[in-house]
Amino acid sequence: MSQYENIWADLGVDLKKHDRLLRGLSVLVRRLHRKQKHRPKAMDYFDDILNDPHGHRVKEMAEHREQGGIVVGSYCVFIPEDLVLAVGGLHVGLCAGTNFAEEDADMYLPRNTCPLIKASFGFKVSYSCPYTQVSSVIVGETTCDGKKKMFEELANHHPTYLIEVPQKKNKRTREFFTEELLEFKRYLEKLSGNEVTAERLRQGIDQVESKFRALQRLFRCRQADPSPISGLDALTIVQLGMQDEVNRFAKQVNRLCDELEERISQGIGVTAKGAPRILIAGSPMSLPNWRLHNLIEKAGAIVVCEESCIGTRLFSKLCEPKGSTVRHLVEALAGRHLGINCACFTPNDERVEDVVRLAKEYKADAVIHYALQFCHPYNSEAGKVKKALDAEGIPMLEVQTDYGDSDNQLSMRVEALINMVVDNKKGGVLNE
Amino acid sequence: MSQYENIWADLGVDLKKHDRLLRGLSVLVRRLHRKQKHRPKAMDYFDDILNDPHGHRVKEMAEHREQGGIVVGSYCVFIPEDLVLAVGGLHVGLCAGTNFAEEDADMYLPRNTCPLIKASFGFKVSYSCPYTQVSSVIVGETTCDGKKKMFEELANHHPTYLIEVPQKKNKRTREFFTEELLEFKRYLEKLSGNEVTAERLRQGIDQVESKFRALQRLFRCRQADPSPISGLDALTIVQLGMQDEVNRFAKQVNRLCDELEERISQGIGVTAKGAPRILIAGSPMSLPNWRLHNLIEKAGAIVVCEESCIGTRLFSKLCEPKGSTVRHLVEALAGRHLGINCACFTPNDERVEDVVRLAKEYKADAVIHYALQFCHPYNSEAGKVKKALDAEGIPMLEVQTDYGDSDNQLSMRVEALINMVVDNKKGGVLNE
Repeated sequence: MSQYENIWADLGVDLKKHDRLLRGLSVLVRRLHRKQKHRPKAMDYFDDILNDPHGHRVKEMAEHREQGGIVVGSYCVFIPEDLVLAVGGLHVGLCAGTNFAEEDADMYLPRNTCPLIKASFGFKVSYSCPYTQVSSVIVGETTCDGKKKMFEELANHHPTYLIEVPQKKNKRTREFFTEELLEFKRYLEKLSGNEVTAERLRQGIDQVESKFRALQRLFRCRQADPSPISGLDALTIVQLGMQDEVNRFAKQVNRLCDELEERISQGIGVTAKGAPRILIAGSPMSLPNWRLHNLIEKAGAIVVCEESCIGTRLFSKLCEPKGSTVRHLVEALAGRHLGINCACFTPNDERVEDVVRLAKEYKADAVIHYALQFCHPYNSEAGKVKKALDAEGIPMLEVQTDYGDSDNQLSMRVEALINMVVDNKKGGVLNE
Repeated sequence: MSQYENIWADLGVDLKKHDRLLRGLSVLVRRLHRKQKHRPKAMDYFDDILNDPHGHRVKEMAEHREQGGIVVGSYCVFIPEDLVLAVGGLHVGLCAGTNFAEEDADMYLPRNTCPLIKASFGFKVSYSCPYTQVSSVIVGETTCDGKKKMFEELANHHPTYLIEVPQKKNKRTREFFTEELLEFKRYLEKLSGNEVTAERLRQGIDQVESKFRALQRLFRCRQADPSPISGLDALTIVQLGMQDEVNRFAKQVNRLCDELEERISQGIGVTAKGAPRILIAGSPMSLPNWRLHNLIEKAGAIVVCEESCIGTRLFSKLCEPKGSTVRHLVEALAGRHLGINCACFTPNDERVEDVVRLAKEYKADAVIHYALQFCHPYNSEAGKVKKALDAEGIPMLEVQTDYGDSDNQLSMRVEALINMVVDNKKGGVLNE
């Protein structure tokens, strides 16, 4: 019995289901992460979290709530953690990367709902996720029809708050989103009893952006050939950053980067130099969605970048405040977030440019455009991305998939892509 | 050869495809509309349009353009025709109710796109719709992910303009939408060369709302038992109102209502008194989507109301201006349109209340919740609507369908519902 079982029980977690979930996670980590070779030593910190995914951090959050603090759960990069920190709250990006609770979700949501949304909602109604349970409130957004309508149902099961994300990118929508964030700020002040001062908000932004800068540094390391870290490990780190304490996490990512930069200077990588390099672009891969990375890297290639909300879209933009008042800072947050080229926007040609630019910066041999089934925004953009990559001579494989267990067809397509890259490279050697 | 063939050719219509479309329509009208009994005489005007669906009105529009006028096409009740009339333009609600051009659309749009969106887009890329071709511009909106992303692709094939419809209902979104409409007004002024004065806009609103009032009157007539008009004919009238000249159309609807009110006073209906009465709620049924009405009415029941954008959502709200300037009037338009309880909004409990209220007002024995396949907003709301109707003891059948040709399963479900209603009524007689 885990030392945390009492905490989970107090949070209303269904211990039987939760135990099944933990055992499944443990099997995945054993089969995927631990089977990797040449891993950096500083992965130890992140491995510890993987080995205790709902323990230490959930305990911190539960204690924070006991002491009167708030915990804010969310599913999207458009919810600024900075504002939560500014009222002394903790933020948690909730998991949605498994079909573990799909059956529970199916009782409420339309059949043709994307697996990520089913997972988000399913974790709540199955009472199997301690992070969902410890959240004082879940903050939703209107980035897609599926989530927008799901939050209406979620409100019957958990306290929720909704932020409207506009759909065009211009001055008017930036002003609109600033007002939405100011209202969210007032909501958080009321919920927590703490005022957002300019100083506290500046501190919140500094903490969040230190994390973003650490992740930028981690991703820069992946531009090296050979990459000093696997795509699976890098993705896992970004995923874990959704839950971890922000300062501790940034420190550990920087500690890892020290080692990675040392590896780069010595030419040490997790593959041989010249191994096929893959950029993944599209729908976010939430914890524990490691399937595509595993297929790619087991086939001898390496994932060098994720153009994703669990990737570059999360951390690439920083605030550029035009002054130091609370309003100036919230305006800067609105600007930072509307600078994220999510497929929820129209038009969204900047994302297409991002993918092409990233493919070059990361020296990707091929791009896999990854969209979840029924994810209309990302599925719609796949064609544009392909056209732009074609023009640059960069091959692209379009994948549309769910969280089902059958990997055969996907595996074959990924292997065919990698073989083509190897042929293109004429004699490039796969690492063992 | 049609006398309008030259006009169609000049508009760039693919005459062969278009001919196939017209023949298909003609077969439908012969099989559905003309097979009905006890039809009001004043349907003659609307039958004439059905017999000449792309003739006279397309000619008027083509001539209007030749004389320097603009024609604005759209697919949604959130595009205010009033503003188009205020610059001397013509407005056309474009058809999207058939899978005629689905294959053409499939080359561009994701597979899991709703049939209405495929039809809208397919009519353009197949060059088979003269109304699409005669449009100076197609004005889109952001009411759902599918349409929002479709308009990005449509912009590669036709001049387009996009209006952002907000997603929450409150003071801020009304202000935002007012600004969007003011920008649209400026766009129309530039496109047409005509200024929107308060007087012209007031006239535009008066014309549009005369149409709305005529349709309200038509729908009130359907509250009678027996109903003096079939659901198929009533739906067809609303559909034809999307394209017809606004004053002429309102006049003809009122002429029809004179006859219907006379019928009601004499107890004359298209069915016997007591025939099962069905309310349809959900996704819009665009021209020529007559399938469900046909199944219901062939089975001896009658459709008494459509809670739909081709129904009550179109015409139920009127402007309530707080003053007489252009801004006041545009604010009132924004208010009128944000009063439409489309499933694009969140939350949208007012729509659930509407359906229950309409079911009572129209003395519906049962409700069919109709959602197009992959239409996330309406599919998501079906559960809430059912719960509210259950509480009132009103049976509801949930239908999710596309434009495919196989009616067998749907037909069986509709007949089972009607049989249940008949049993409930204990001896209610089906009309012949």
